[in-house]
Amino acid sequence: RECFCSFTTTGDILTQELLCIFGTGDLGRSLGQRLLQTGYRVVYGSRRPHSCGPLPERAQVMSHAAAAQSANLVFICIHRENYDFLETLAPELKGKVLVDVSNNVEKNLYPEANAEYLQRLIPGAHVVKAFNTLSAWALQNGPSDANRQVYLCGNNAEAKQAVSVVATKLGFTVLDRGSVSAAKELEDFPLQLFPEWRLPLRLAVGLTAFFFFYLLIRDIISVYIKEKKDISFRIMVSLANKVFPIVSLIMLSLCYLPGVIAAFLQLYRGTKYKRFPDWLDRWMLCRKQLGLLALGFAFLHVLYTLIIPIRYYVRFRLSAITVSENRTPEFDTTMAWRTDSYYSVGILGFGLYLLLGITSLPSVSNALSWREFSFIQSKLGHVTLFFCTFHTYLYGWDKFLRASSYKWYTPPGYMLCLVLPSVVLVLKLLLLLPCVDRSLTRIRQGWERTNPDDDSRKSLLT
Amino acid sequence: RECFCSFTTTGDILTQELLCIFGTGDLGRSLGQRLLQTGYRVVYGSRRPHSCGPLPERAQVMSHAAAAQSANLVFICIHRENYDFLETLAPELKGKVLVDVSNNVEKNLYPEANAEYLQRLIPGAHVVKAFNTLSAWALQNGPSDANRQVYLCGNNAEAKQAVSVVATKLGFTVLDRGSVSAAKELEDFPLQLFPEWRLPLRLAVGLTAFFFFYLLIRDIISVYIKEKKDISFRIMVSLANKVFPIVSLIMLSLCYLPGVIAAFLQLYRGTKYKRFPDWLDRWMLCRKQLGLLALGFAFLHVLYTLIIPIRYYVRFRLSAITVSENRTPEFDTTMAWRTDSYYSVGILGFGLYLLLGITSLPSVSNALSWREFSFIQSKLGHVTLFFCTFHTYLYGWDKFLRASSYKWYTPPGYMLCLVLPSVVLVLKLLLLLPCVDRSLTRIRQGWERTNPDDDSRKSLLT
Amino acid sequence: RECFCSFTTTGDILTQELLCIFGTGDLGRSLGQRLLQTGYRVVYGSRRPHSCGPLPERAQVMSHAAAAQSANLVFICIHRENYDFLETLAPELKGKVLVDVSNNVEKNLYPEANAEYLQRLIPGAHVVKAFNTLSAWALQNGPSDANRQVYLCGNNAEAKQAVSVVATKLGFTVLDRGSVSAAKELEDFPLQLFPEWRLPLRLAVGLTAFFFFYLLIRDIISVYIKEKKDISFRIMVSLANKVFPIVSLIMLSLCYLPGVIAAFLQLYRGTKYKRFPDWLDRWMLCRKQLGLLALGFAFLHVLYTLIIPIRYYVRFRLSAITVSENRTPEFDTTMAWRTDSYYSVGILGFGLYLLLGITSLPSVSNALSWREFSFIQSKLGHVTLFFCTFHTYLYGWDKFLRASSYKWYTPPGYMLCLVLPSVVLVLKLLLLLPCVDRSLTRIRQGWERTNPDDDSRKSLLT
Repeated sequence: RECFCSFTTTGDILTQELLCIFGTGDLGRSLGQRLLQTGYRVVYGSRRPHSCGPLPERAQVMSHAAAAQSANLVFICIHRENYDFLETLAPELKGKVLVDVSNNVEKNLYPEANAEYLQRLIPGAHVVKAFNTLSAWALQNGPSDANRQVYLCGNNAEAKQAVSVVATKLGFTVLDRGSVSAAKELEDFPLQLFPEWRLPLRLAVGLTAFFFFYLLIRDIISVYIKEKKDISFRIMVSLANKVFPIVSLIMLSLCYLPGVIAAFLQLYRGTKYKRFPDWLDRWMLCRKQLGLLALGFAFLHVLYTLIIPIRYYVRFRLSAITVSENRTPEFDTTMAWRTDSYYSVGILGFGLYLLLGITSLPSVSNALSWREFSFIQSKLGHVTLFFCTFHTYLYGWDKFLRASSYKWYTPPGYMLCLVLPSVVLVLKLLLLLPCVDRSLTRIRQGWERTNPDDDSRKSLLT
Repeated sequence: RECFCSFTTTGDILTQELLCIFGTGDLGRSLGQRLLQTGYRVVYGSRRPHSCGPLPERAQVMSHAAAAQSANLVFICIHRENYDFLETLAPELKGKVLVDVSNNVEKNLYPEANAEYLQRLIPGAHVVKAFNTLSAWALQNGPSDANRQVYLCGNNAEAKQAVSVVATKLGFTVLDRGSVSAAKELEDFPLQLFPEWRLPLRLAVGLTAFFFFYLLIRDIISVYIKEKKDISFRIMVSLANKVFPIVSLIMLSLCYLPGVIAAFLQLYRGTKYKRFPDWLDRWMLCRKQLGLLALGFAFLHVLYTLIIPIRYYVRFRLSAITVSENRTPEFDTTMAWRTDSYYSVGILGFGLYLLLGITSLPSVSNALSWREFSFIQSKLGHVTLFFCTFHTYLYGWDKFLRASSYKWYTPPGYMLCLVLPSVVLVLKLLLLLPCVDRSLTRIRQGWERTNPDDDSRKSLLT
Repeated sequence: RECFCSFTTTGDILTQELLCIFGTGDLGRSLGQRLLQTGYRVVYGSRRPHSCGPLPERAQVMSHAAAAQSANLVFICIHRENYDFLETLAPELKGKVLVDVSNNVEKNLYPEANAEYLQRLIPGAHVVKAFNTLSAWALQNGPSDANRQVYLCGNNAEAKQAVSVVATKLGFTVLDRGSVSAAKELEDFPLQLFPEWRLPLRLAVGLTAFFFFYLLIRDIISVYIKEKKDISFRIMVSLANKVFPIVSLIMLSLCYLPGVIAAFLQLYRGTKYKRFPDWLDRWMLCRKQLGLLALGFAFLHVLYTLIIPIRYYVRFRLSAITVSENRTPEFDTTMAWRTDSYYSVGILGFGLYLLLGITSLPSVSNALSWREFSFIQSKLGHVTLFFCTFHTYLYGWDKFLRASSYKWYTPPGYMLCLVLPSVVLVLKLLLLLPCVDRSLTRIRQGWERTNPDDDSRKSLLT
C-alpha cells in the first residue's frame, strides 16, 4: 500500500540504528519504549540529562546537542511553546531529519503549522511531520483499528523515506501527503470530530424535533383535548414510525436538491466556470452525509413497521375488531391492490436506498470508475427518491382531497414531507427534457454563452 | 497509500514550480485553474497565443514551442486526433515529461493507446498516462468520492515520480499501474459501466421475467379462467415473493456450479495446466456478481416475507377464518415443527448469505489471507446453498408427491428452482468423497495423469 | 497505492526482460507460464536441464549456475529442505535479487524464516520475500478477490523495487513490510485461519450451548415432566430467540468489560506505563471480534422476532384466544407503554449496534481519525450497551420480583444475562464520576503516582 524505499547510503537497512528523541514527557517515553522494542537504539536529548524522570531502561540520555549529533533522525516530542530553544541547536541539527509529532490543543491557535514553524526555526534541517495522527496508545503498542496509517509530509523526499522506514518497522502503513504545507491539515486531523457530519446531523435533529412536536400536538394531544382519551402510549412506536419516514424522505430530497439547483444555476449563467455560491458549495459537500442519515432513518422506519403486528396494541385491536364485528366483512380488491403496492414500492425503494449506502463505502466507491459512481448516485438515486415519494403518495391515496384529513386546518405529516421530494422530482424531470438536457451538456463540456459585454473571462479567476 | 518521492535535482520540492499545459479547451482550463489554486505557476501552449479564449488569470500563454521549453512537465490536454502536430515539437519536448490525460469517446477506436501513440510520436520524451480516470469536476475541484485515485503508467520511473508529486499536491492518491503498455486499460476504464455485472444482470432479469410470467399464468390467470375470480392484486406481494426467492436460489447455485464443473473437468483431463473453455472462464469470473445479485433477491424475499402479517389481505383472511370457524381447531405439532424449522433454516441461511456478502467487500476481502477467503467463499458458501435449498424443501414438504400440486401438469415454481441447487449439492458431495478428493488435490498440486502418447506438454503453452 | 519506481540503470523498463526461476515444480511452472504471458523471457535453472518434465514452451532450461548468471532476478521455487545446495552457487548469485516464494506446511517448523535462512546461506545476494501469500491459482491466472496484494520484505531497497516492478506488471499491488525480519510473519500469513476469531468464536459456541441446554431443561423439559405436554417444537424458534439475544448481550458486555477493568487497573497502579497482564491484553485485542459476533447474534434475534407473527403456532394461538374469549378484553395502557418502549429501545439499540459494526469495516475505520473512532466505539458503544440492557430490563419488567419467575429456583435466561452488562454499566458510571475521571485522565497523560520507595521507574522496562 505504500513505499518504504530506504535511501540509506549503503542501500541496506542497518539493524540497531540509533534514533534520537527530544523531550522526556509522556509522548517521548511512549515512543522511545516502542522504538526500543522494535530493535532500534534510542538516545534522549534533555535539558537536565541526569534528572529527567523515568525513561525506558536501555535508552541513553544526553544533552540536546550531544544527542542530536549522535543520530540522523530526531523525534521532536516537545510542545510547540518550547520550540524556540531549538534555534540555538541549529548547527547540530543541520542536515538532520526532524520528525515533528506535535499536536495542538485546538485549531487555529497559531498562524502557521507547528512543522512549518519548526522548519523556519531550523532551515538547515529536513522537517517531516508524522505520527501526530496516531493515539499515544498506538505509538506505544503498535497499530490498531483506526491507527494503522501514518500520514507524513515534508519538503525533502529522502527525509520522508527515512521516516517511512521507521514507521513501517513499527508496523504502520505510510501515506505521503506532500510538502510541509500540508502540515496544517495533518495537525487539524486529530482534533476533528466528524466536521462534515455536523450540518446534516443538526438538520436531522431539527427536523425530527419539529415533526415530533407537530405530530404530538396534532395526533395525540388533540385527541386528548377533544375526546379526553389518553393515547400517549403511541409516542413510542406509532409516532416514531411517522417521524422517521418523514425525516428520511426530506433528507433524501435535500440530498438531491442541490444538484438540481446547481444545474439550473449553470443554465441561467450559461457557464460552468463561475463558482457556486458558498452555501451551495457547502451543501453539495455534505450530500453523502445527508443521504446516509436518510438511510439510517429509513432503516428505523422499516424496523418500526415490521414490529407492528407483534405490538400489544395491534393484537388487542385486531382481536377486538374480530370479536365486535363477528361477521365476514366485504373484501375490497382496490384496498388490497393499494396496500400491496404501497408495501412493494416501499421495499424496492428501501432496497435501492441500501444499494446507494453500500456504494458509499470508501472501499466500494474507490473500486468504481466515476462513470459508474455517478450512474449509481445520480440515476439510481433519483429512482430511489421516486420510489420513496411514490410510496408516500400511495400511503396518502385519496386522503389528499378529504377535508377530514386536515384536522385543525393542519395537513398530516406525510403531506408536509411530500412537498420537497415532489419539487425535486419535477425539477429533475424538467432537466431531462431533451432541449434543456442538451444545453446543460454543452455547458458542462466547457461551452459558454457569451454576451456582448460579459465578464465571464474574469469569472475564471475565482 | 502511495509513493511521492520527488526526484528533483535538489531533493527539495520547489514551491511555485512552473507547469505547462498544451491545449486551452475545457480540460486544459479546468486543470490549469486547479494547478494555480494549488500554488503552481502555469503556462499554456497554444497555436494562437493571443486569441485562445478565456483562461485563468495568472496563467501565461505562449506558443507551444516556447511553453514547452519553459517547463519540465507538460500536460497534453489535446484530442488524440490532433496529436500529430506534436511531432514537430520533438526537439523542444526531448527529455520532458509528457502527461497524457486524454480519453476516447469509445473503446477500440484506435489500434494503440493514446499514450503509446504519443510516445511513438516523440520517442525522446517520457510519456506518463495519468489523470484520465478522473472526472473534469474532480480535476477542477479536487478529490471526491469516486475520484480519489490517480492511476498512472509510463516507462520512466522518474517521470512517474514527478507526476505523482503533482497529483499528491492536488490532493489525490496515486496508484502506479506499470509501464506504458497499461495505458490501454487506463483509457478504457472511464468508459466502462459495470462490464462484469452485465451477464449476471441479464441473467437475473431473464430469470425474473420467466418465473414472473410462469407463475402469473399458473397461479393467477388459471384461477381467473377456472373460477372467474380476480386475484390479480396478488401480483404485487405474493407473486413477487415467489419470484424473488426462486431467482435468488438459482443465482446462488449458478454461483457454485462453475467451480464444480471445473473440478470435474480437471479430474477428467487429469491435469490442471489445460485452460478451461472460454465460457467456463467467463462464468467463473462473474461468480462474485452472481452471488451478490442472489443476495439482493434474498434480501427482497426477506422483506416481502416480513410484511406479510401487516398486509390487508392477510389480516382480512385471518379475521374471516376466525369468524367463520368460530371454534378452536386442533393444534398440529408436526405443522409447528415444520414451519418453525422452515423459518429457522431460512434465517440462518440468510445470515450466512449476508456474511458472504460482507466478505465480498473489497476492504474486507483484502484483509483476509486467501486461505481464509476460500474458506468463507467455498466452505461457508456451500453450507449457505445447503441451508437455502433445505429451506425450500421444507417449504414443499409433502407437496412433492401430491398430484394436486401439478396444476395443468406444471410444477410449482419452487420445485422448478430446486433442480439446479440439488444438482450442485450432489456433485459437490461427490467431490468430497475421499477417493475423488484425493485425486483432485493431487492434480491441483501439479500432478498430471500421463498417457503413453499424450500432448499434455503442449497444453502448457496455452 | 504503492511504489513501483524501477531502478534499472537506464531508468526505462526494458520489455522482454529475462527472469530466472530455480525449480521446475508446480510453483515454478505456474509462475513461469504467467511471466511469459506478461511479456518476460524466462529461463529455468534445473539439476537435470534435459529431463525436468513439462515446462512452458518458450522458456529455456539451463543448469542452475548458467541460469543464475543470465538474469538479475532469480525466483527460488524450491522447498526449503533443498535450499542447502544453493550455497554452492554463492559466487554466481552474488549481487543478484533472490525472490523467496516458499511457504511451510505448518508454523514454527524452523527456528528462522525461510527467507532469513536463504539470506544467511548466500550473504552476497539480496533476498526478497514475496508472492508467498498468493494462491498458486492467482500466480498462474493473475489477481482475484483475496489475491490482489503482494506483500514483500527484504533488506535491500533496490532489490525490493525490482521485485515490485515485476509484481505490478503481473497485475498485483505491492505492500512493503520492511526488512527481512518480517519474513517470519509473511510466511505465517497463508497458514492462518482467523486466529483472532478463535477465542471469541469458542466463547460464543460455549455460551450458546450453555444457554441452549439451560433453557431447554428449564422451559421445555420441565413442562414435559410437570404437565406431560410436548412443546418441543418451540426449540426451533422460541428457544433460539431466547438464546441468541442472551448470548448477544453477554458478548457485547464482554466487549466493553476489559476496557473498564484496564481503567481500574491503571487507577489502582497509579501509572499507565505498567503492562497489563497477558490475559487482559489478549482480551482487549479481540474486542472487535467479540462485538461483531454479538452483532451477528443480535441480527438473528431481530429476524427471529420479526417472523413471530407469521408462525403457525402464533396464528393458531391468536385465533384460539379470540374464539375462546369472544369478548372485548380491557385495554391496558401500561402494557401498551411497556411493550412499545421495549420494542422501540430494542430497535434503537440495534440501529446503534449496526453503526458500530459498519465503522468496524476496514475502509471505514481507516477513514476516521482516532478521536472519531474512539468516540464511536467507546461512547456510542456504551450507549448501545445501555440501550440493549434497558431493552432486556423492560422485557423483564415486574417479573424480577415475582416468585413464579424462578421455576425450580432457577432464574430465567434473560435475568442471568443481565448480570454482566449491569456490572459493566455500573463500573463505567463510576469511571465517569468527575473525581475518578480526572485521576484517570491525568494518568493517561503520563502522570504517575509516586510512593517514597516505589519501583515504578523499573516498570518502564516492560
